[in-house]
Amino acid sequence: MDLKIDQAPLVKAGADDIVVRPRAVGICGSDIDMYRGVYTGFWHLPVIMGHEFSGEIVEVGSGIRGFETGDKVTAEEIHWCGYCRPCKAGLPNYCQNVEELGFTTPGALAEEVIVHKKYIHKLPSNVTFEAGSLVEPASVAFTGIFVQGGGLVPGDFVVVFGGGPIGILSTILAKTAGAEVCVFEPNPWRRGIAKELGADHVYDPLSSEPSKIVKDLTDGYGASMAVECSANEKVVPQLIECLRYKGNGVLVGMLEAPSTVNGITFVKRGISLVGSLGHSGHDTFPHVINLIARKVIDPSKLISHRFSIWEPEKAFSFAVQRGESMKITLTQ
Amino acid sequence: MDLKIDQAPLVKAGADDIVVRPRAVGICGSDIDMYRGVYTGFWHLPVIMGHEFSGEIVEVGSGIRGFETGDKVTAEEIHWCGYCRPCKAGLPNYCQNVEELGFTTPGALAEEVIVHKKYIHKLPSNVTFEAGSLVEPASVAFTGIFVQGGGLVPGDFVVVFGGGPIGILSTILAKTAGAEVCVFEPNPWRRGIAKELGADHVYDPLSSEPSKIVKDLTDGYGASMAVECSANEKVVPQLIECLRYKGNGVLVGMLEAPSTVNGITFVKRGISLVGSLGHSGHDTFPHVINLIARKVIDPSKLISHRFSIWEPEKAFSFAVQRGESMKITLTQ
Amino acid sequence: MDLKIDQAPLVKAGADDIVVRPRAVGICGSDIDMYRGVYTGFWHLPVIMGHEFSGEIVEVGSGIRGFETGDKVTAEEIHWCGYCRPCKAGLPNYCQNVEELGFTTPGALAEEVIVHKKYIHKLPSNVTFEAGSLVEPASVAFTGIFVQGGGLVPGDFVVVFGGGPIGILSTILAKTAGAEVCVFEPNPWRRGIAKELGADHVYDPLSSEPSKIVKDLTDGYGASMAVECSANEKVVPQLIECLRYKGNGVLVGMLEAPSTVNGITFVKRGISLVGSLGHSGHDTFPHVINLIARKVIDPSKLISHRFSIWEPEKAFSFAVQRGESMKITLTQ
Amino acid sequence: MDLKIDQAPLVKAGADDIVVRPRAVGICGSDIDMYRGVYTGFWHLPVIMGHEFSGEIVEVGSGIRGFETGDKVTAEEIHWCGYCRPCKAGLPNYCQNVEELGFTTPGALAEEVIVHKKYIHKLPSNVTFEAGSLVEPASVAFTGIFVQGGGLVPGDFVVVFGGGPIGILSTILAKTAGAEVCVFEPNPWRRGIAKELGADHVYDPLSSEPSKIVKDLTDGYGASMAVECSANEKVVPQLIECLRYKGNGVLVGMLEAPSTVNGITFVKRGISLVGSLGHSGHDTFPHVINLIARKVIDPSKLISHRFSIWEPEKAFSFAVQRGESMKITLTQ
Repeated sequence: MDLKIDQAPLVKAGADDIVVRPRAVGICGSDIDMYRGVYTGFWHLPVIMGHEFSGEIVEVGSGIRGFETGDKVTAEEIHWCGYCRPCKAGLPNYCQNVEELGFTTPGALAEEVIVHKKYIHKLPSNVTFEAGSLVEPASVAFTGIFVQGGGLVPGDFVVVFGGGPIGILSTILAKTAGAEVCVFEPNPWRRGIAKELGADHVYDPLSSEPSKIVKDLTDGYGASMAVECSANEKVVPQLIECLRYKGNGVLVGMLEAPSTVNGITFVKRGISLVGSLGHSGHDTFPHVINLIARKVIDPSKLISHRFSIWEPEKAFSFAVQRGESMKITLTQ
Repeated sequence: MDLKIDQAPLVKAGADDIVVRPRAVGICGSDIDMYRGVYTGFWHLPVIMGHEFSGEIVEVGSGIRGFETGDKVTAEEIHWCGYCRPCKAGLPNYCQNVEELGFTTPGALAEEVIVHKKYIHKLPSNVTFEAGSLVEPASVAFTGIFVQGGGLVPGDFVVVFGGGPIGILSTILAKTAGAEVCVFEPNPWRRGIAKELGADHVYDPLSSEPSKIVKDLTDGYGASMAVECSANEKVVPQLIECLRYKGNGVLVGMLEAPSTVNGITFVKRGISLVGSLGHSGHDTFPHVINLIARKVIDPSKLISHRFSIWEPEKAFSFAVQRGESMKITLTQ
Repeated sequence: MDLKIDQAPLVKAGADDIVVRPRAVGICGSDIDMYRGVYTGFWHLPVIMGHEFSGEIVEVGSGIRGFETGDKVTAEEIHWCGYCRPCKAGLPNYCQNVEELGFTTPGALAEEVIVHKKYIHKLPSNVTFEAGSLVEPASVAFTGIFVQGGGLVPGDFVVVFGGGPIGILSTILAKTAGAEVCVFEPNPWRRGIAKELGADHVYDPLSSEPSKIVKDLTDGYGASMAVECSANEKVVPQLIECLRYKGNGVLVGMLEAPSTVNGITFVKRGISLVGSLGHSGHDTFPHVINLIARKVIDPSKLISHRFSIWEPEKAFSFAVQRGESMKITLTQ
Repeated sequence: MDLKIDQAPLVKAGADDIVVRPRAVGICGSDIDMYRGVYTGFWHLPVIMGHEFSGEIVEVGSGIRGFETGDKVTAEEIHWCGYCRPCKAGLPNYCQNVEELGFTTPGALAEEVIVHKKYIHKLPSNVTFEAGSLVEPASVAFTGIFVQGGGLVPGDFVVVFGGGPIGILSTILAKTAGAEVCVFEPNPWRRGIAKELGADHVYDPLSSEPSKIVKDLTDGYGASMAVECSANEKVVPQLIECLRYKGNGVLVGMLEAPSTVNGITFVKRGISLVGSLGHSGHDTFPHVINLIARKVIDPSKLISHRFSIWEPEKAFSFAVQRGESMKITLTQ
């Protein structure tokens, strides 16, 4: 993709819009795919990228109460319509008229970004802009485990496949809920981060048999929950094998290719597999913000590299290497 | 398998055992597989077959209150231990020390069958022996939809793949819960039965595209739930395609071969897939018996052919043809 | 209250509004309370009453797709904002900026009513206007049992206290879900309607001990669910006594006075009590409309008396008598 | 009650029994009530008290695999039958043939205690006897919050009424699940312990208005969950007032007297109230043991005073004072 700093057409904010000056913007795997020109999701070119962000309010629409200039905020990436059938059923992540900030509408890698009040969430003053820019991906992980995945009880055993940002955030959140967590990740540097940020166990899935390891760690029972965050279709059958009777597998990664699964394993062990998309609804953003404000979690620890928002090429050309990096964040 | 009428070793009933004279015994797909010598499940040869049955009590162990000679009863096939970890967690269908009546312990195709009181359920006097012999398979369908599948609300749209006994019982139960039901079954005779016993829609999955039909029937939304009762691994990806956002697929059939599924469909639609085994626990038998006693359902309508319990060869040689038959029942 | 036919100020419909000509409007208990001047809920005077209605579209706002002039529709009474915290959590019935059609905004006892597209639901052509006018109260009952109450499985035993419209609709819906239903109602005429429209058992709670009757009807176990639709605070402790272990009590009636309950009964039987308000969200309206369109339920059977919308005084002065009437409906 | 050290009749352990030498036995509020002669629950005199205990196995019945002499263990107090309807439905806490260790069968304040294998749970070697003796009360709190109460997600706000052992254990467990916790307790010494062991906020309910405090701490929303552990009937209406829309109140304390509640509050806020009894089933003991073994929680911190098992009079006469003490434990 041709990435450049440019003057975007001026858009006038409406009565229900809030104008935010982004202060921290994270680069997501989707952003890297867009940059590489291999993104297969829903987007409209040209677009201003940037959907994991925090910032300060610079203008508040005339129809809005409860927000003020200077407020620290973050926003949902999923711009749900609020009136289609899934939205009215409380399932905005499956909105049938969805727009996506930074994919189909102008995103946060800009001097200012305009967001409808529906998608804005205030950040308490003790939440840093960097932590605030990670509320969105943390909410993706939260949605996977606690909304679509049905949640955990303390003492559960959780397996996470993939030690990228969503995998690490899933690890942190599962630990916060009292679970024992085992992360499978081939990259040794990422395994180190996973361990440092709370994983009880980390293993290389390429030099081990995940289901065997999990059974050894659980007196033979297997995992209560397993979360797929690697986007690798070969992981799906492995994940299924890791689950105990009534265990639940959660697919969060964007699995491009089909997987081969044994239906009989579902039947014989009563296990389930559920997909999870998005981060909106279900009181998720307020819960994640509360956890950061109370210092229960600090997602800014995922930030491994920082760049200026005015040097996106530098940031993206580094990001595509996907080596010893976790979250790359642009600030202004 | 060598099927014969023989004298089994006499077993003395214990203080917690009940001796039942079977009066109606249904032939299950597993029985046919055993007879054909292709059964791949858990069993011990030689065995007295017969696990879908009802009968009358002829002897009550000394340690038992609440049952009397002459009582009409049925029994669970899954003989859960009650003290392993899944059993103590309320999940007897996943018992780690399970025995199975008619597979690993002597079944009901006999003059008498001895069953521990834990597995016996009384039938009200207005429940016929024939209906009573179908409590077990109806409970398998009930477990799939209401226990493992998470249940329905009136107005849901349910797809059932497979019009054999479990598929028909799933159809009847989903209708009882207020759902609209579409059955996919290649055999036209079975489609006729499905329609007659309550299905709103019946289609041949071989001459149609199930997901297209379901979308047409649901204003494009797809099914709330889809139940796999055909044991055909090719159905699994079709079933997934039939589901709406947040829809739930339930696997009840014993799927011998692996299936190919698209993980991304799980993610993008937030759907889930869960397996279901057995019929024990969860107050399932009492609920099914209540439905029969109240005449809300009449599973005896599934019985298409009747034989004497003393002519099993005749019954089984007919059953293996799997043509225009639904449930074949042996009586004495 | 001073009830009169008057010329309301003309309001211009907006781009997202739909103008509906009401064709059937039901009188609710709240309407009667407003008329009697004893309504204690949220309202603004003067107001055009009428919130249980159906009609045909006479004008469609310019920003709306999917609706056309002549479409048969009904609408939600709860006008949820869509952006407060409960709304964004999928709980529009607890909206913090709620407006209520016919209470705080102009209702349907008029030549035309203007409704934002968010609250409009299309009715299939085979749904009569009369049945359509009962989607709202049926959705109140649906919300009580299936949303707040957690739902039913076929074979459950449900107690309904109160045989007014919400009680009867709860009965019909519980039956639709496969439950056995016992209604307690002092008015013999209403008990007759309850029986006629599906209740398995009806009793006068004043000349009987409800919990004793329920135990007798359930082999001593008690009810799985009990729904309070009488708005009588003395019912609450009775309802609790009717529940079996893990049973669930649902409060739908507007209980004005406090009730005395035994906490120890909650503890010893593990029972729960939950309140239910409203009818919005959770895909409830579409489910209720589906049940009517499929002829699974016919709520228009509740209509005992019909008046012209242009003779409201006649209708209301009859309604306040609350004698041998169930639902009173005004048509034009 | 007349408390004495005596020679109990010798009982022979059966083939499915395990003989345990108790090493740590906690005194529960029920024990104190029995000692004081005011216990209103289910018991048979004379009885050996002691139901919160751990110990080492001294004898294993001939029919048992998986346990050995010397194993560190604890046991459930609720001796569920396993075959009544609630037991078979997975609800052993509501067993209809229940016996209770230390109430109706000989307890652990003895040289040895005989327990059926069904109720025994192994403790890993790194769990101390003292921590092990608190698995039972911790499981009571776990059952309240995670089984009957429906669980928590990280970021929820939980109120606990009562700072005795069950209140403190509820606090510790809610914190483990990622919640923010506010404890109301009149005794300043107990408030100190609550704070020390994890409560985010502690208040005296007698000199404050709990619901006002909770609203101030939650931006006006109220608590997601409120747990009653004080056994004070006046707390119930206060607890209800503390809840936000869809909030859940859990009654764990043995509320002897009736409470006055406003049904309309349930309706208008969609809140629920559920009772919780016991600690068995639902995989609860294994989860609590896992949390202790992994050092996520250390319930032995509740032990404020220790006595010899051979000086019960000393321990009980101290315990009845209920002053600056939390858990009093007897060891041998």
